[in-house]
Amino acid sequence: MRYELYYWPSIQGRGEFVRLALEEAGAEYVDVARTPRGMKAMTRLMERRAAGQPPFAPPFLKAGKLVIAQTANILFYLGPRLGLVSEPEPARLWAHQLQLTIADWVAEAHDTHHPIAGSLYYEQQKAAARRRAADFRSNRVPKYLGYFERILKSKGSEFLMDKRVSYVDLSLFQMIEGLRYAFPRTMARLEAKHPRSVELHDRVAARPRLANYLSSPRRVRFNEDGIFRHYRELDS
Amino acid sequence: MRYELYYWPSIQGRGEFVRLALEEAGAEYVDVARTPRGMKAMTRLMERRAAGQPPFAPPFLKAGKLVIAQTANILFYLGPRLGLVSEPEPARLWAHQLQLTIADWVAEAHDTHHPIAGSLYYEQQKAAARRRAADFRSNRVPKYLGYFERILKSKGSEFLMDKRVSYVDLSLFQMIEGLRYAFPRTMARLEAKHPRSVELHDRVAARPRLANYLSSPRRVRFNEDGIFRHYRELDS
Repeated sequence: MRYELYYWPSIQGRGEFVRLALEEAGAEYVDVARTPRGMKAMTRLMERRAAGQPPFAPPFLKAGKLVIAQTANILFYLGPRLGLVSEPEPARLWAHQLQLTIADWVAEAHDTHHPIAGSLYYEQQKAAARRRAADFRSNRVPKYLGYFERILKSKGSEFLMDKRVSYVDLSLFQMIEGLRYAFPRTMARLEAKHPRSVELHDRVAARPRLANYLSSPRRVRFNEDGIFRHYRELDS
Repeated sequence: MRYELYYWPSIQGRGEFVRLALEEAGAEYVDVARTPRGMKAMTRLMERRAAGQPPFAPPFLKAGKLVIAQTANILFYLGPRLGLVSEPEPARLWAHQLQLTIADWVAEAHDTHHPIAGSLYYEQQKAAARRRAADFRSNRVPKYLGYFERILKSKGSEFLMDKRVSYVDLSLFQMIEGLRYAFPRTMARLEAKHPRSVELHDRVAARPRLANYLSSPRRVRFNEDGIFRHYRELDS
């Protein structure tokens, strides 16, 4: 199966969680919006009313005739097909539950710089952003990181699900990467308390296919248009 | 199967989306935290480290040995078992995609009164709340409502998925209920433009089991501790 991924071409954003799964599995895929005329194709697919099943927003994945949106939903679909989760239903539901928790975390990371409205610039909501980011740093990041650390500790295994890497591990890697970029001082303080999560991050980064991807031009650089943005004033 | 639902006893919140599905299906279930010593049972289950699969937050559902958290994940599991979605994978993924879009909408509804931090009182973030609510009313509610309206229009059917009611229809009903409570003026203005969504809401409310549930003491009243809160100043 040759997958088509549709996502904004200039940011990692939510699409990156899907890219990491496709890359780790060595799947055949096209990052459509990054090809010539790809943005047009993406817009067309979103507006195609006839289909009756329009995505609310990117990312979405075309797999044969299926068009699947919502990051966690895409990963739920891809997981067993890419060998990135075990087949039995309980395992798939547990992985999905963790992925949905990461999705909540991602939304909160985004809202640190856009607490008022996505339709306004960061500069128009800076005061609120400072307050929201302070709460995110002191309460939310420790709560989420602590949650995953606790699971890794109780499992005692190399990865979140079991001995094999799953798409949830890739997503936790990406969260840590993003938080390091956006909140380097906060993460420098918190990482020592979450050694298992940091080890998992390193283990994922060292996987041959992922290491290759991360150093390739296919990996978009972090930047201040994405979900994880570095604004010094939000990390003090 | 006798299901056990775990959720905060004094609010509708996210648990309500699960309650509606269980009620519509006439499923046997216990709303555990609303029984004597139920809150203790809920806390114990969340802290039980041995299980290795702790929920991050309520709601969660106990189904035999399975403990499933994340509202949309619970509904994904229950859907086919309660006859509230068709069995084939494409239908289940499409329903889930819509449910995840509703989950995003719910989070945004919550953040209108808590744009800075869940750990602070509304009164401590009132100015930011006014601004966020203004954007929610003018941009976000029309965008989400318009999305579902467009699907209903293109389908031309009584319900979102097909001719039979699905858990997504129940959730859209609940969104409209919640928004009417929290933002009555906004909804009075918007409803005429979204006739199919309003009709779907009424169709769901008139279903015998749901009508019975909605007028029973099992339905918690909307209040200012929940996700949908009525603050006059946020609806002007």
